Parts: sequence; C-alpha cells; structure tokens
Amino acid sequence: MGIDLGGSHVAAAVVDAQGRLRGRAERAVDAARSPADLVGIDVAGVVREAAAFAGVELDAVLAVGLGVPGSIDAVARTCRFAPNLGWRDVPAADLLERALRRPVRLINDVSAQALGETRWGAGRGAETLVMISVGTGIGGAVVVGGRLLEGAHGAAGEIGHATVDAVGPPCRCGNRGCLEAFAGAWAIAAAARAAVERGDAPGLARRVPSLDRLDARVVAEAAAEGDAPSRAILAEAGRWLGIAAANAIATVDPQCIVIGGGVARAGELLLAPLRAEAARRTRMLGPEETPIVPADLGSDAGLLGAALRILQEEPCRTLGGGL
Amino acid sequence: MGIDLGGSHVAAAVVDAQGRLRGRAERAVDAARSPADLVGIDVAGVVREAAAFAGVELDAVLAVGLGVPGSIDAVARTCRFAPNLGWRDVPAADLLERALRRPVRLINDVSAQALGETRWGAGRGAETLVMISVGTGIGGAVVVGGRLLEGAHGAAGEIGHATVDAVGPPCRCGNRGCLEAFAGAWAIAAAARAAVERGDAPGLARRVPSLDRLDARVVAEAAAEGDAPSRAILAEAGRWLGIAAANAIATVDPQCIVIGGGVARAGELLLAPLRAEAARRTRMLGPEETPIVPADLGSDAGLLGAALRILQEEPCRTLGGGL
Repeated sequence: MGIDLGGSHVAAAVVDAQGRLRGRAERAVDAARSPADLVGIDVAGVVREAAAFAGVELDAVLAVGLGVPGSIDAVARTCRFAPNLGWRDVPAADLLERALRRPVRLINDVSAQALGETRWGAGRGAETLVMISVGTGIGGAVVVGGRLLEGAHGAAGEIGHATVDAVGPPCRCGNRGCLEAFAGAWAIAAAARAAVERGDAPGLARRVPSLDRLDARVVAEAAAEGDAPSRAILAEAGRWLGIAAANAIATVDPQCIVIGGGVARAGELLLAPLRAEAARRTRMLGPEETPIVPADLGSDAGLLGAALRILQEEPCRTLGGGL
Repeated sequence: MGIDLGGSHVAAAVVDAQGRLRGRAERAVDAARSPADLVGIDVAGVVREAAAFAGVELDAVLAVGLGVPGSIDAVARTCRFAPNLGWRDVPAADLLERALRRPVRLINDVSAQALGETRWGAGRGAETLVMISVGTGIGGAVVVGGRLLEGAHGAAGEIGHATVDAVGPPCRCGNRGCLEAFAGAWAIAAAARAAVERGDAPGLARRVPSLDRLDARVVAEAAAEGDAPSRAILAEAGRWLGIAAANAIATVDPQCIVIGGGVARAGELLLAPLRAEAARRTRMLGPEETPIVPADLGSDAGLLGAALRILQEEPCRTLGGGL
C-alpha cells in the first residue's frame, strides 16, 4: 500500500509487484487537525477505502509506505518537519501502525516520486538518477544503484537549497541564492508580481483581480497562451534550474535527470532553457549523455514510490518475523 | 600494490589488508615520454622496486591499482584524459598488465585519495563521505556506503567544476563561476598577482623576483607568516570552498567532508572561513552534524586508495579465474 500525504489531500492505493495501482482512493485533509487524528483517522480511513476498492483484506497488505511532505528521521520513525502540515517530530509511522496494525515505513514525498519514476516512469532502467521536483518549494532526490541515497542524516537530495548564486536573493530557509529562491513557485510568483508592479507585464495584470492572486500557475497559463513576459519569467527559472542540473551532473553523474512537480507542467517553456543552460555548464560530458526529462507518472509516482520503499527493504528488517 | 602516478613523480607500495604500506618506492617521471614507455618501463619499474623493497615476489601481489590524474573509462580500461600527462584515451591498464603480468585496475587519483581517507584516514568509519582536493585544479570524489560513487560515465565527484556563482569568472573548463575558478591554486595565484598589480600586496611582491613566480604556495607561506593580504586571499578561497561544501551537504548529506590537496596545507587559514561559510549556508543540519576536516594521510592516501579499489571489486571480476 502506497500513500501520498500532502498539505490538502491524501491518496492511497494498493500497488502490486508490477507497479500497477489498484483501488486508488483520495480525500481532502485538514492540516489543522492534530497529527494523531489526521494520521489515525483520515489517513487510516483512506487506506481502508483503497483496500476495499481493490478488493483486498487489509491483513493481506504486506506493508504500508507513507509519503509525507517533509524531512524524515528513519531511525526514530518520525517526521521531523513538514511545514505544509505544521508537523514537528511527529511519530507518524507509529500512529499509522497503531490504527492499521500493519507495518508502516515513512518516506519523503519527493523521494517517493523519484523511486517511482526510476522504476516505472521517466527514469525507467536507470540505476543512478537525480530528481528535481519544482513545486512551491523545490525538493530533490538522488537514486544510486536503484536505491534512494538517504545520506548520513536522511537529508540528501535537498537540491532546492543548494546555492546557485553566491549573492542571490534570500531564501525561505535563511540562506541566500538557493535554487528555490530563483525557481520555486513562490519565487516565480514574486518575479511575476515585480514585473506587474514595474508595468512590464500588462497581460499578467489583467488575469488576476489582485496581485496576491498572481501565482506560478497563472504565469504558466499566460505563458502557454503566448504572453512574452510570462515566458521570460519561466525561461529565467529554467536557466537557474539548469545550473542546478549541471551541478548535479558534476557531483553525481546520473544516467538521467527527471524534472517533476507542478511547475514542470509548463513543459518545454521551462525545460528547453533548462537543458540549454545545463549543456552550457557541463564540459566533461555531452548533453546527450545525461538526458533531462519530464516526470511521466504524474501524481501516481508518489504512491508507487512509497510502496517501492517497502519492497526495497530487507524483508526481515521491515516486516518483522511474521513474513 | 597501489600506485600513484602524477605529472612529475610516480610512487608505488605494497599495501596489506590492514592498510600498512610496505616497500614504498618513488621516482621522477618525464611526462613527455610515450604512454607505452612511461607505463611499461617507468611505472612497471617502480612497482618491481617496491615489491623488492617489501621482500615480496611480484607473482604474490594480488593485483595492482593504478591511480592516474585524469578521467577513467572503467569499462574500456583506459584513461580518457589526463592533462598533466598529455594523455588522451591511453589503455593504461592493459599497458601495465602486459609489463607486469598481474591484473591492473585504473582509478582516478582523487578518487583513490578519497577511498584511502575513508578507510584509514580523516574519514575513518564514515560510510558516506565527500572529498574535495584543492590543488592546481580542484578534484572531488563521493563515497557512498564505503564505495566510490562512479556515476553513469565515471564522471561523478567533479565538484571543482560545479557552479558556485552564476556570473563568476571563466574557468579553464570553458564554464563560468566554477569552484575551481575561485579556489584552485591557479585562481589563488591569479588573485595574488592582481593584488600585487593593484599595489595592495607589497609583502607578496617582495617575495618573488617576478610576478609569474607568484603561485599559491608563496601565498600560503606569506599568509602563515602573517601577511594580511595573503590571508585575505586564502580566506576568500575558503569561502568559495565553503559554498561548495554546503552544496555537497545539501545534495549528498555525507558523514564528513575531507579537504585535501596541496592548497589545504594552508590549514586553518583556509579551513576556518570554509567551515563558517558552509555553516551559514546549511540550514537543514547543524555545523557539528557534518564535520569538515583536513585529509590526514598526505601522499599515502592515493597509494592506499588505489590498492583498496582492488580489494572492493568482486574477486571473480577483477582477478580472473586464477585466484
């Protein structure tokens, strides 16, 4: 069973060994609820629903992978920090195990997407892969030998908070010049608002009743319809992503780089400048040696990857003596 | 047997399973010689000398690890490019095997240093480690699970050519704003010459008969003796290395970062600003969670690591049916 818990929705599905989703269920969640209720009632409820839709007894589910939008302490089985859920040090694995009486493993949501795309998506066949997920924030994950690179503290893959410009703008994390501060959805929205305020983007100004409604989605829509200032804003975000991609190639030399997340739905308007910048900055390898491709499993990647996380564990460690 | 082949010297020693060097031998090499002579005569000669010093028959040597200052094609067993040797696509492993009649494996010299430091040096006990080696150029290596991260094309760990400043100065590789263009010995020398030309570094000017003799070693000596402009130049290089270290922490989350190479002999004059900058830019982890330490095996690291490279191979693949 794979679960993808976000700030507004939770989805779950039974995943079989061929990567097919069965009985997908989804519901809205209220992040203001206590973690105990959110996990023990809402998440557990959607899991039971998915099992019922799939026609599977919950007891027949091998184990449950819970993807959460935050940092994980794999040893303590807690979610250390998930800003969109308002969580700090939440023992989410134990909360869900108590409700379901099945073994539960936590995984970061972008890490889950990366595993799903590596096994069954845009990175199919790759052993070593880097994923960059461009949403409100920018997450990332590194897969080495088909497995997630967790790092010494479970903090590997934070490519959104690597510096791409030493004296760049302040980031939400407290650093300056992070990739996220140039290319995260909040940074794209800020660039769009600044363009409107300068009078440089009249087409964007007409699309929203007030400046605070101007977000990255509006920019992407306007760009898709040909608005030149919006295209320039996306291209600029793409160039910064291209620097980060080149740095990931220099450091990890993956077989491919997968670009996912909501902002990546802008497609070639983001990806073409991204690829061009990465090629310009990668001198050791040719651009065809490291394809940079869009994610192709959409919102299924997180569910599939959360389930994969379990299958990759040594059975004795994950699933206890019962299996 | 571990070998460390550089642009001016080659060293070899027998390495036992406890990481002790026995019978170390060294000689000058002339990079102008043909690769066939350099490897088949000079390198093979120093290997025979080391075996004799160690009192070991060459036939009793399990295998030979040859560290070279360049990029490796592990599949083709060639050195793709080693600028200091003037090599392009040199079948170095086969050349040495023919001379010695022992199995030979190639390894990049900085990768060898990283393996040596991980197993027996500054990173002892670490499973995941990043090494940055600051010489004329800047090399790097990533160790994951105690093994070298090779990457899809054997090009992982090129941290010297990751961008730390989007609009930075041109690098020798053709990119702009690479770490090496700020903190490699050639960049430190260029900064020192510029300071002298501006009249800002009279103490440095007095140390050399002409500007072209002003290299990073002179800067480090002057800094050690208290010359303020030289200290500022090293501190600036340290800050750029700190950005790269922070980016390595964000991407890989290693247990520690080891700083090696000739420039690192400047010690705390380089390392203190490096650590401060890395701490400032790492918001997810505290500075004590990822120690940044100087290499401690010196020139032995390359010999030890080249030998380790063999021990980590599956015996059947490396050593053939005869063992």
